[in-house]
Amino acid sequence: MNYCSQCGAEVGVRVPEGDNRPRHICGACGTIHYQNPKVVVGCIPEWEDQILLCRRAIEPRYGLWTLPAGFMERGETTHDGAARETLEEAHARVEVLDLYTLFSLPHIDQVYMLFRSRLLDLGFGPGAESLEVRLFDEAEVPWREIAFPVVKETLKIYFADRRTGRFPLRLGDIVRAPDDPRRYRIRVHGGGPAGWVPVPGS
Amino acid sequence: MNYCSQCGAEVGVRVPEGDNRPRHICGACGTIHYQNPKVVVGCIPEWEDQILLCRRAIEPRYGLWTLPAGFMERGETTHDGAARETLEEAHARVEVLDLYTLFSLPHIDQVYMLFRSRLLDLGFGPGAESLEVRLFDEAEVPWREIAFPVVKETLKIYFADRRTGRFPLRLGDIVRAPDDPRRYRIRVHGGGPAGWVPVPGS
Repeated sequence: MNYCSQCGAEVGVRVPEGDNRPRHICGACGTIHYQNPKVVVGCIPEWEDQILLCRRAIEPRYGLWTLPAGFMERGETTHDGAARETLEEAHARVEVLDLYTLFSLPHIDQVYMLFRSRLLDLGFGPGAESLEVRLFDEAEVPWREIAFPVVKETLKIYFADRRTGRFPLRLGDIVRAPDDPRRYRIRVHGGGPAGWVPVPGS
Repeated sequence: MNYCSQCGAEVGVRVPEGDNRPRHICGACGTIHYQNPKVVVGCIPEWEDQILLCRRAIEPRYGLWTLPAGFMERGETTHDGAARETLEEAHARVEVLDLYTLFSLPHIDQVYMLFRSRLLDLGFGPGAESLEVRLFDEAEVPWREIAFPVVKETLKIYFADRRTGRFPLRLGDIVRAPDDPRRYRIRVHGGGPAGWVPVPGS
């Protein structure tokens, strides 16, 4: 950020009075430009024993598989956003059920919320950001071609929970290794510490 | 938003190619300036049968009571943010426990996440944004002086759940009435529809 979006003057970085963090502040009009994490909302669409995945037609991680998910938009709720992303990326209509994983990704300033959802019919297909959309049995999931750590971890937990038939909310953090961007650590609150694991697809 | 924060040129509003919503786009460098909802994180600090509330020293709703909460910052997790806000606003140290309410507020583009938490000691006191911080029994809660609908609804559900000893995640939306900003509707997913109720403090 170099210029004030309000008045067009140059911005500087300093700690505002009464604050404790550096912010971008306009040298002319004084506007403080706060920057905050973004929410990513998405679904685990279920159809009998299968789940729906999308193969990405865009960067990052073009060609790899992911759950339908994207940035929450202004004016919508988390449920609405999860359903909208599923419709846009997979042309799939769902009933959004419970929140299942809620992960903070502090290294990229994102909060992921993935909801279990019920696919309403089989009339899905690739949206503009997908190359391919299909249903997978657990045995077919392309584990080495999953686009993002947060999706891979969600799917691992999901299939483990499915054996018990219970899907409690899993709340945790995914933190990139300071010395190696290809490794990350997942910590599920209440689930104990975990070691460093490689980024999927790398 | 009037100017591009990257290059300082004027921005216009139009739907980018491949998108379906109007965005602010720079006429010179082409940067698309996305705007997204913000996450507010906070705590319900518990001490035996009491909970901690803060009386606001800032607008909006100066002088009214609220739970310690504020905007999640870059580089932190939701748990970290909830603990930080509680320390800043109430000088209170907590162990953050489970996520308790998660409400979308689409009319103001916020997602609220309030966590149950255990107050670690009684060495709390007002931070810069609070006039007063104190513990309340249920019977003492100043229901007519609660700052925000989302906090009032969280406290109502909290005290109801406390009678059962179970605190399941409550996920829902708080939507302002289109024709009257002093009324809102709360919808807890799985909890059925609710009517319009007045904004607290108005």
